[in-house]
Amino acid sequence: MKNKLYAVGIGPGNERNMTRACRDALQDADIIIGYATYTALLTPLYPEKTFLSSGMRQERARCEEALRLAASGKRVAVVSGGDAGVYGMAGLLFELARAYADIEIAIIPGVTAANSGAALLGAPLGHDFAVISLSDLLTPWEIIARRLTAAAQADFAICLYNPMSHNRRDKLQKACDILLRHKPGGTLCGIAKNIGREGEETRLCSLVELRDTRVDMTSTVFIGSADTIEMDGNMVTPRGYRHV
Amino acid sequence: MKNKLYAVGIGPGNERNMTRACRDALQDADIIIGYATYTALLTPLYPEKTFLSSGMRQERARCEEALRLAASGKRVAVVSGGDAGVYGMAGLLFELARAYADIEIAIIPGVTAANSGAALLGAPLGHDFAVISLSDLLTPWEIIARRLTAAAQADFAICLYNPMSHNRRDKLQKACDILLRHKPGGTLCGIAKNIGREGEETRLCSLVELRDTRVDMTSTVFIGSADTIEMDGNMVTPRGYRHV
Repeated sequence: MKNKLYAVGIGPGNERNMTRACRDALQDADIIIGYATYTALLTPLYPEKTFLSSGMRQERARCEEALRLAASGKRVAVVSGGDAGVYGMAGLLFELARAYADIEIAIIPGVTAANSGAALLGAPLGHDFAVISLSDLLTPWEIIARRLTAAAQADFAICLYNPMSHNRRDKLQKACDILLRHKPGGTLCGIAKNIGREGEETRLCSLVELRDTRVDMTSTVFIGSADTIEMDGNMVTPRGYRHV
Repeated sequence: MKNKLYAVGIGPGNERNMTRACRDALQDADIIIGYATYTALLTPLYPEKTFLSSGMRQERARCEEALRLAASGKRVAVVSGGDAGVYGMAGLLFELARAYADIEIAIIPGVTAANSGAALLGAPLGHDFAVISLSDLLTPWEIIARRLTAAAQADFAICLYNPMSHNRRDKLQKACDILLRHKPGGTLCGIAKNIGREGEETRLCSLVELRDTRVDMTSTVFIGSADTIEMDGNMVTPRGYRHV
């Protein structure tokens, strides 16, 4: 029988937005492994579990440790914020698992920040949308810029992950400059901060205002399509062009 | 005090993938309203609740009924498959709610098919991705075609919703023809069918093969980026270009 390793998306971080499958996997696990922010959120909910945590950029080491433990017969859950398959650990686990014959990886999907953030703001992703990470740790900026341009030109609603990082504070500004070449400055935008956690807050602004807004790593940013409008304080992208 | 109306994303349809917030909202509701497929899934889980269901294209009437009932003091949950904010009822409810002063809409996010389908296939959306509906009921085909082109040119992984409809069976073929102008025929693709329900199945194929595959309304289609590869039967898009 193969050893099972769960790659679990825990959603934005509160228990309310975890799925039952997520909680079942965490309950079934002997060891829960993840980035320190997420294990800190989970420790009070699963006080009897063993947690292994590490910092950012330790993803590869965490996954290797998880696979090693799973191969030794432990039931292991590797947790990602949001969904394990969206900028999460799932892909890296599949990649590294090729060195092990005896591990079966089960991906438990979760509510990613595009959806949980959208729900706080209204319905900004009600029609076609693009999800783009501004992190250039693993992706050259030219590719990010090309994707921003394409998404703006084709009028997708856009959700930006990682709009700020430690080493680069001007990425959101650079991204907005690219978008402003193809979208009106008045395009409705939204920011969701600390989704599902202490300090949760949202804000609507224009694309021009977004350019000069300081966001942090806890923020997810939404940029409207040409159809996106404000309705009673909510950011809404209707489902179609003939939505009357 | 305002009357509360929940717009609830129930995920792919099984209880395992519902969040606690979803189940709490359904438990709190007097009446659960939705497309017949979803209310049929929920009726066995909430046998004591009143359900109101109707068919496709009755979205507007359903939302109006929901708002009318909420205004009369009933606690109402409008359910959408997946996430209420992604091609779901959330936007339409905000739109129609402008006629009522006394209703507060709470969006309960759920696991949308992009995430639940991806989890079955592996991790096809591990990096930047675009979500596009092929339904041309509300959106002219030219806009869909433009978005497919942009997503292919900028090398997004792509998730297609509504790849087939009653009246138009050739839309996936037309979409693949557009994508094939910009992407290699061998691009790895995946199909997830009946996610979380009876008859759940997945299949990997090339973009050329996808073009000639018959899918139905229960299918969600994934098209890889240039980086997407098969790993032990899983469709995986690594998190970055420098992922070694």
